[in-house]
Amino acid sequence: MIGRLIEKIRETGAPIVVGLDPQMKFIPGMITGPAFSKYGETLEACGEAIFEFNRGIVDEVCDLIPAVKPQIAMYEQFGIPGLAAFRRTVDYCHEKGLIVIGDVKRGDIGSTSGSYASAHLGSVTVGNTTIEPFGEDFATVNPYLGSDGVKPFIDVCRSHGKGIFVLVKTSNPSSGEFQDRLIDGKPLYELVGEKVREWGEDACDESGWSEVGAVVGATYPEMGRTLRAIMPKNYILVPGYGAQGGTGKDLKPFFDGDGLGAIVNSSRGIIAAWQNEKYADCGEAGYAYAARRAVLEMKEDISGAVFG
Amino acid sequence: MIGRLIEKIRETGAPIVVGLDPQMKFIPGMITGPAFSKYGETLEACGEAIFEFNRGIVDEVCDLIPAVKPQIAMYEQFGIPGLAAFRRTVDYCHEKGLIVIGDVKRGDIGSTSGSYASAHLGSVTVGNTTIEPFGEDFATVNPYLGSDGVKPFIDVCRSHGKGIFVLVKTSNPSSGEFQDRLIDGKPLYELVGEKVREWGEDACDESGWSEVGAVVGATYPEMGRTLRAIMPKNYILVPGYGAQGGTGKDLKPFFDGDGLGAIVNSSRGIIAAWQNEKYADCGEAGYAYAARRAVLEMKEDISGAVFG
Repeated sequence: MIGRLIEKIRETGAPIVVGLDPQMKFIPGMITGPAFSKYGETLEACGEAIFEFNRGIVDEVCDLIPAVKPQIAMYEQFGIPGLAAFRRTVDYCHEKGLIVIGDVKRGDIGSTSGSYASAHLGSVTVGNTTIEPFGEDFATVNPYLGSDGVKPFIDVCRSHGKGIFVLVKTSNPSSGEFQDRLIDGKPLYELVGEKVREWGEDACDESGWSEVGAVVGATYPEMGRTLRAIMPKNYILVPGYGAQGGTGKDLKPFFDGDGLGAIVNSSRGIIAAWQNEKYADCGEAGYAYAARRAVLEMKEDISGAVFG
Repeated sequence: MIGRLIEKIRETGAPIVVGLDPQMKFIPGMITGPAFSKYGETLEACGEAIFEFNRGIVDEVCDLIPAVKPQIAMYEQFGIPGLAAFRRTVDYCHEKGLIVIGDVKRGDIGSTSGSYASAHLGSVTVGNTTIEPFGEDFATVNPYLGSDGVKPFIDVCRSHGKGIFVLVKTSNPSSGEFQDRLIDGKPLYELVGEKVREWGEDACDESGWSEVGAVVGATYPEMGRTLRAIMPKNYILVPGYGAQGGTGKDLKPFFDGDGLGAIVNSSRGIIAAWQNEKYADCGEAGYAYAARRAVLEMKEDISGAVFG
């Protein structure tokens, strides 16, 4: 799957992933109105509004980007109907040719991680029928439980041609509390980075890159430089651009000399662009077009900084 | 909620939680048969079988124990219908007076953790309607992202009278890879334990115990002793008893002098007891009664070792 992602990054010239993390306050009344009329004040109405909102954005940006990253928490908060909207979003993005990174941050002891891996990247067999429960192409994974919490995901990546991104250094302000603490003179995130390299060694595809990547926040460019060197064959998914404070010039260290090696996520900055003064002329009806303009601007910012 | 849990532990005399982690291979044909007849080879059939299996066990053990702990991965692997079975299980356990610990191991950056907290412990507001998406009483939380990944859960605990158990030292073999590494001479799990104490300080209820507890595996009793001392007001949820290798005598260090401070989980050892030679006389039809006998035996084992 990493090879396919790289191919699509090359096609689009955009190492960009759009975070489909809808909040109700981002969704225009022209979408929520009909959903509430149809379903009342229910979780079903929220699920319907979220999916319609996503569909509008996906239609406008699918030719510009290789991948989307729905954050499952934003769907899970609306219970079963929210998760049904997540599943519909995955399917719709696939129809539109996009790669889907499920930002699920799952991780547990071995057999339980295996179940999460089946849920998001693999399949379950019911009698003689094989079913993909959620059907993402990549998933994010939490490393706190160590190798036996991560390896079941890698097994499913191998059997189903999928990939993962393991949390190494997250973009949030308190990520340093544990991740930056020194162990034998090295911060924990470097040890996790070394493990990512090790876990991913036997999972390289024809591109030469590993199906096991890492999450490293745009907010920590110096750490990105170190981790890029520690993990030469592991793609880095970079959150924290835009609303969280990361800028184009922070991104260069995450990429290798060929402009490969990283893919940068923006969520709110794209999907809620219509609420930004800069795109106010798009209006509510143009929320998806505002997202398109924000993607084009992000592409230019990144190209200038990384490849300029 | 921690006060209610302690009250129920006292009532039942059982610091025991039954892990409702159903696998299809644990479910007798008398349950799967009708589910597959009705729904075919679908995820709906799996969800129906899982719920019916759980219901039988809950009916047999609900007078013996204070709480259950469904592991959401076992439901998530069956997609939306699996998660609907999770929600039905939570509701049914509540009807039967049980406290429900959602073993969800969620954790993300601040605002996203807030969404997970609303999903599992809190509520969302849709127009003028307030809805509890999953409705558990406690949830397990992953600490890798630091304070701003955990605090949104604590905010919801305060506003909704709920609790959490933060992963400190997990029961699996590779948990030591990161958790045992020394930082300034102290293992990471101790630092996380200190943070659990700190996070929980302002969240004690009338029992004097904190709504913020910790997960520490039964497979590491010496670490349990240390962590019990580091976190004097934080309850410990202890997985790893039974099938994972922990025994009654390993448990004493997790409890304080009053026999409080810990609650021990067993999953497979209870819910799949009917497949154990020891309870073979229960037969398939007596799978739930076998679970009851296994709970009674576990209660005796723990009482003897901890209070004997």
